[in-house]
Amino acid sequence: MAEKIKRPKARNYKGFKDTFAEDIILRRKMIETIRVICERYGFSPLETPAIEYVDCLGKFLPEEHTPEGGIFSFKNPDLSEATRADHPDWWLGLRYDLTAPLARVVAQNQDLPKPFRRYQLGQVWRYEKPGPGRYREFYQFDFDTVGATSMIADAESCAMTCDILEALGFVRGDYLIQVNDRKALQGALECAGLSEVDITDESSQVGVALRAIDKLDRIGRAGVTELLGKGRKDASGDFTEGANFNTKQIDVILAYLDARSDSRTEVCNRLEALVADSKIGCEGVEELRQIDGFLTDLGYGSDRVRFEPTVVRGLGYYTGPVFEGVITKEIVDEKGKTRNFGSVFGGGRYDTLVQRFTGQKTPATGGSVGVDRLLAAMRLLQADTALPTCTTEVLITVMDKSRLTDYLQLLQKVRAAGINSEVFVGSGSIGKQLQYADRRGIPLVIIAGSDEFDNGEYQIKDLELGRRLAADISDRDEWLKGRPSQQTVAADSLIEKLNELLADYRSK
Amino acid sequence: MAEKIKRPKARNYKGFKDTFAEDIILRRKMIETIRVICERYGFSPLETPAIEYVDCLGKFLPEEHTPEGGIFSFKNPDLSEATRADHPDWWLGLRYDLTAPLARVVAQNQDLPKPFRRYQLGQVWRYEKPGPGRYREFYQFDFDTVGATSMIADAESCAMTCDILEALGFVRGDYLIQVNDRKALQGALECAGLSEVDITDESSQVGVALRAIDKLDRIGRAGVTELLGKGRKDASGDFTEGANFNTKQIDVILAYLDARSDSRTEVCNRLEALVADSKIGCEGVEELRQIDGFLTDLGYGSDRVRFEPTVVRGLGYYTGPVFEGVITKEIVDEKGKTRNFGSVFGGGRYDTLVQRFTGQKTPATGGSVGVDRLLAAMRLLQADTALPTCTTEVLITVMDKSRLTDYLQLLQKVRAAGINSEVFVGSGSIGKQLQYADRRGIPLVIIAGSDEFDNGEYQIKDLELGRRLAADISDRDEWLKGRPSQQTVAADSLIEKLNELLADYRSK
Repeated sequence: MAEKIKRPKARNYKGFKDTFAEDIILRRKMIETIRVICERYGFSPLETPAIEYVDCLGKFLPEEHTPEGGIFSFKNPDLSEATRADHPDWWLGLRYDLTAPLARVVAQNQDLPKPFRRYQLGQVWRYEKPGPGRYREFYQFDFDTVGATSMIADAESCAMTCDILEALGFVRGDYLIQVNDRKALQGALECAGLSEVDITDESSQVGVALRAIDKLDRIGRAGVTELLGKGRKDASGDFTEGANFNTKQIDVILAYLDARSDSRTEVCNRLEALVADSKIGCEGVEELRQIDGFLTDLGYGSDRVRFEPTVVRGLGYYTGPVFEGVITKEIVDEKGKTRNFGSVFGGGRYDTLVQRFTGQKTPATGGSVGVDRLLAAMRLLQADTALPTCTTEVLITVMDKSRLTDYLQLLQKVRAAGINSEVFVGSGSIGKQLQYADRRGIPLVIIAGSDEFDNGEYQIKDLELGRRLAADISDRDEWLKGRPSQQTVAADSLIEKLNELLADYRSK
Repeated sequence: MAEKIKRPKARNYKGFKDTFAEDIILRRKMIETIRVICERYGFSPLETPAIEYVDCLGKFLPEEHTPEGGIFSFKNPDLSEATRADHPDWWLGLRYDLTAPLARVVAQNQDLPKPFRRYQLGQVWRYEKPGPGRYREFYQFDFDTVGATSMIADAESCAMTCDILEALGFVRGDYLIQVNDRKALQGALECAGLSEVDITDESSQVGVALRAIDKLDRIGRAGVTELLGKGRKDASGDFTEGANFNTKQIDVILAYLDARSDSRTEVCNRLEALVADSKIGCEGVEELRQIDGFLTDLGYGSDRVRFEPTVVRGLGYYTGPVFEGVITKEIVDEKGKTRNFGSVFGGGRYDTLVQRFTGQKTPATGGSVGVDRLLAAMRLLQADTALPTCTTEVLITVMDKSRLTDYLQLLQKVRAAGINSEVFVGSGSIGKQLQYADRRGIPLVIIAGSDEFDNGEYQIKDLELGRRLAADISDRDEWLKGRPSQQTVAADSLIEKLNELLADYRSK
């Protein structure tokens, strides 16, 4: 009796996805641009493993949407179940960012030349609720300087982000780097009457206040005021407990948020007046003044880098300047509402993260590019990001199987000329082969049969032309109409002709 | 009373490692070379997630050193403990290769244009016993053609591997692609008197035989003969149970292994004589004959691709031609023994892997580059793989903190010229700054103080020169001795001078 075979269903795990050629080609170009600029600034590459001991990763994720602490964790299979569960090697986890592993590397390799300037591109994994455009596996591109107290390093983070965004095609004025300082903010809270403020303690009254300020964009000034006080009921009726500041305290915090100005010096002056009675607050303003000066030296004005007292950044470990790169150009979102695209980059100074391991304060500052957010912004805002969608440039169709030697020698000749090409290795009619080329997005097809081989000539079919004509008969592409969709070419001018026809496709 | 703070120890998980600039720079160059050639052959990029449902991954790893089936697996945190443990979504695992995920992608996206030619670079994770040079996380670079029965695809795998190895600097004659065919081997086993041979069943008598043949290099012909018979006791006294073939059967298998020849046609003739009575065996020989023909058409003779009946490949899923790329150049190993470097590439045809999901036979063939093995081979065998070990080209030292504006404007000028550079953002004397540049491997240092800025000139210190002189005062580097280790340069010829001094470093 034949047993029914149980077959697995081919499926992705929830929140994970496959990425195909078109997206990879665009992302590769973007990442390559970022890499070149990072190296221009003196950052060197580092790679760390996907799996880390959980106690090395620490817990610095914001708590929303993060059951299980927001990380994928599992028991170390090297240890037996009999091992005490509080053994430090017991829990393993997938990294959730690239900063925690960097802190581990620096603590583990005390003899690294300092300042240690490294960049790292890598995937990170977060056990969060997946949603539209929100995945549990995504790329980050981080750059950090460890072992430098100088605000030059912070100013460079801002400058480099400008360079990256402009190299990627964002026009000056369509983006903005917004800078704040956690020490200045802490000073404001102290001046509001709070003593012993620990700005990195997420569970404290201060933590609640920071999270409230972080929501300013979404809930507005009135919403933030409620969250700084008793609390706030949102549209769905859910109540969020507030920070329970009194009115006088709330006024000081709101004055801090209102200190924004187009002039960086002016923001510093306003903040200084607010935090004058706080030592730490004055330190924070001094940091901002230095960053302002270094940015001016480097040639980055407030049209590109602005001081913005409402920026707090989610992560708990920041201790000084914090930055955010936002695309200010407006988009129309899925609900038809016009809004700014928002944040594509974030970072700041975290002088205590390495200390977790070593007990010694180690200054560190840097940032992280939201690779997928930035890609989305490029797709939405840059009409001319259209890159080739297929890496193969030429398909050689097979009409006559008795001439395979000719097809393969032709293929070898085309490849030797540096043209990405393939012979059709599947089975099917010439129609099916053309359909294959079309569906893959291959721009050119060579058609040849016995006659062509005997006469030393080939047919070239220009599929890209058809695609462009179908997509857009604009003035710009008017000349395309003069191109023939199919032409006969002599064997000895084939390579030249292919390169000529591909020139436009390659420069896309 | 002060509580003692418990700090985590900064450490890597067993079998995992961090990778620093020097290794990443070399690997990046290698991978980029492989990528360009893959695209030249018509393969397009694909990326799949790190985490998969375990039932989608299947179990195709050889069983040695693989507790827990050789994969890192964990329970799906989306499901409650109350869910039945036999729920197909219950177990998640990290991918252990890139072929199983490819089969899943093809089964899941039935409308992909076929043949589907994709390459993928990615890390894979194996829960194995780590050892020297043997890690639990490593890169693979795979290329595969799904949906083509044509042996052109298999011939191309061999041809492309030759192209890759030569592009990476391996000289013709120092490497060899060795090809065998599982069907031909199956035919030999049938002719030896075994009926209903399932060559993909690892636990069968045939599986034991294949594993024995796979060890030929290590244990020699006599050892294989023992393993094909009753079994073999190794040097340590451990006994391995044999396949229990009788003498006549063993003779047929040994005759198959002995069929090697420098001529591909001759191997086909010899194998044909051996398997003439087996239908599947003749099919296998016919596949080899076709591959021979296509390779000849493409211009790859037996100095590069040879037929080698002793190649079986470890993985259970191969169904036809199998390939192995070996570096034949001799090395002296850690024990002082001269041996071939061995395998850096493997692949073959696996027509049943997608069938696991769909029930429909889907032809597929491809290969996998052992990225780390190949890197090791390059380091061992190519004296001139020496690439720049640092991405930063110029360090600007800081002697006078009151001139930071001048330093930053100088920095900006050097960067604008496309030179990877940084100003020293740490703290310390000029001596400490030079030591930093030296330890990082930065080739050039600019030294400037108030006098230099006022006079419009800079000191350039050539650290790379010192390094080369120290490493190797050979004839080749004789000219280096004429270079000054430090020189004064006028501001307006600075960029030109830096580029001149960097030319040699960059072309490394």
